[in-house]
Amino acid sequence: MKTLLFKSDIERGGLWLDAFAEQAPDLKVSTFPYEGDPEDVDYALVWAPPRGDLKRYPNLKAIFSVGAGIDHLKSDPELPDLPVVRMVEPGLTAGMTEYVVWAVLHHHRFMLDYAQQQRDAHWEEINQVSAARRRVGILGLGHLGQDAAEKLAIFGFQLSGWSRSAKSVPGVTCHHGAEGLKDFLAETEILVALLPLTPETDGILNAETFGRLPKGAALINVGRGGLQNEEDLLAALDSGRLSGATLDVFRDEPLPSDSPFYSHPRVVMTPHIASMTIPETAVTEVLRQIRRYEAGEPLEHTVDFKRGY
Amino acid sequence: MKTLLFKSDIERGGLWLDAFAEQAPDLKVSTFPYEGDPEDVDYALVWAPPRGDLKRYPNLKAIFSVGAGIDHLKSDPELPDLPVVRMVEPGLTAGMTEYVVWAVLHHHRFMLDYAQQQRDAHWEEINQVSAARRRVGILGLGHLGQDAAEKLAIFGFQLSGWSRSAKSVPGVTCHHGAEGLKDFLAETEILVALLPLTPETDGILNAETFGRLPKGAALINVGRGGLQNEEDLLAALDSGRLSGATLDVFRDEPLPSDSPFYSHPRVVMTPHIASMTIPETAVTEVLRQIRRYEAGEPLEHTVDFKRGY
Repeated sequence: MKTLLFKSDIERGGLWLDAFAEQAPDLKVSTFPYEGDPEDVDYALVWAPPRGDLKRYPNLKAIFSVGAGIDHLKSDPELPDLPVVRMVEPGLTAGMTEYVVWAVLHHHRFMLDYAQQQRDAHWEEINQVSAARRRVGILGLGHLGQDAAEKLAIFGFQLSGWSRSAKSVPGVTCHHGAEGLKDFLAETEILVALLPLTPETDGILNAETFGRLPKGAALINVGRGGLQNEEDLLAALDSGRLSGATLDVFRDEPLPSDSPFYSHPRVVMTPHIASMTIPETAVTEVLRQIRRYEAGEPLEHTVDFKRGY
Repeated sequence: MKTLLFKSDIERGGLWLDAFAEQAPDLKVSTFPYEGDPEDVDYALVWAPPRGDLKRYPNLKAIFSVGAGIDHLKSDPELPDLPVVRMVEPGLTAGMTEYVVWAVLHHHRFMLDYAQQQRDAHWEEINQVSAARRRVGILGLGHLGQDAAEKLAIFGFQLSGWSRSAKSVPGVTCHHGAEGLKDFLAETEILVALLPLTPETDGILNAETFGRLPKGAALINVGRGGLQNEEDLLAALDSGRLSGATLDVFRDEPLPSDSPFYSHPRVVMTPHIASMTIPETAVTEVLRQIRRYEAGEPLEHTVDFKRGY
């Protein structure tokens, strides 16, 4: 019998345990902190484990991240040299795509302006632009970016995308590298940031970047708070360089209650909920990978720490 | 050479005239008020013509509505007995579907709650429900309702629909008639009203209807303001029977500035902009129909005044 060490947030932990009990009654799932024999632990499925904890288990074979991000593991300098698996599960992808489509439509249909009119008890039509003339750009063409692009294409938006290395995505004008970024930004009216946080992407959403977008462009950040220079972002919103921003992530989370983002009239913000792992489908995915690995097949969606994601 | 009498709102009229000039340079397009020989007018493309005006043209063959609704024509007791064509054009449908998908995602993802949290400078996750467990019901399965259903299906929502007479729409659990309405409402968490306004649908969104929905359901009205009993709607929002409403239409438009809808924290409202006819694609459609008619073929999308739409 295999043992899985599980650590998530307390509130939703029960849903995970229920899913494991239903889908894999044979698996021994131990919640954190682990009080059994460290030698018994085969796999870990964790979110933000205490620094150094994961090196305690000599027979640990692989580490699964509870969420899509892996910053919570990268920050542990004592992380053992084992395969780390990013969470790629249908619920996580579906949730992110829902959020991205919602936020793109929010800006496309001038909903920040209509919200202001509602606050002002003012009634006035704004001439609509058809989706075919609206240019949406996705910064980051990984699994999540590609799924969002696929759903946005159904509405007929003009889509472009940028990734570090060259990619080809059907229906998306693809750019890559430093030079490609300039061309990509120049043609993007609604910018969706879906990059992982790496030394290269830290602060990539800054004054220079905003200056390359057409005036009045909108920003949607659903990647990581570290992507954005928050002073530059507020300045761009105040000057009208950006017409608005939908922000799900921030450098400092939870966002302190005195942050100017809460009250900014051109900001819609949510508490890092764009995409939440859905326990039921995530457990199915973790079990699928464990079974593959036990059968001698390689793990999928493993992290390349040199690349940073 | 044929003559078309054109009356729209002033602001966007130029876009229509440009589209006609480009797509049909042979057609004589006369703007309202018409000062030529009434006998010369072959077709009318109008929005809210003055009562009795359209009977002035003895050789008029058909009346095209500028928008999807035809209330502005039905209210003319002297309307000549001629074919009246509703506007069905791809821009109008696409705009409505964008709005419906946006509004459904807004309620599905608890955006009214997150907006309240933003106003309160409060940071808290709300557990997400997957689209597969979210029941969206469309009241009205005409051309617009079916297109919205098709796009919503891509996100995996549980879809049901209601229409006056029996219909079959792929992927949608269809109900019809008075008894079917009860079953439909009982299973609908997000209700999209896309019905035309007729004596039967006037006030259909009332206290009894809201009482049949699961507690905490959300309403999206993109049909006609006359569908909703506005006192009942406010009471249902205040009691929590409805968790929120997205309203694009009202009984009295423009909505008076002292209306409680403007300031209600559980209401998102827009000034009747869910769907706007896009001149370029609408002109293509009107010309297609005129050419068909001149070639002896029947007009499409004509209004059945007995049925009311």
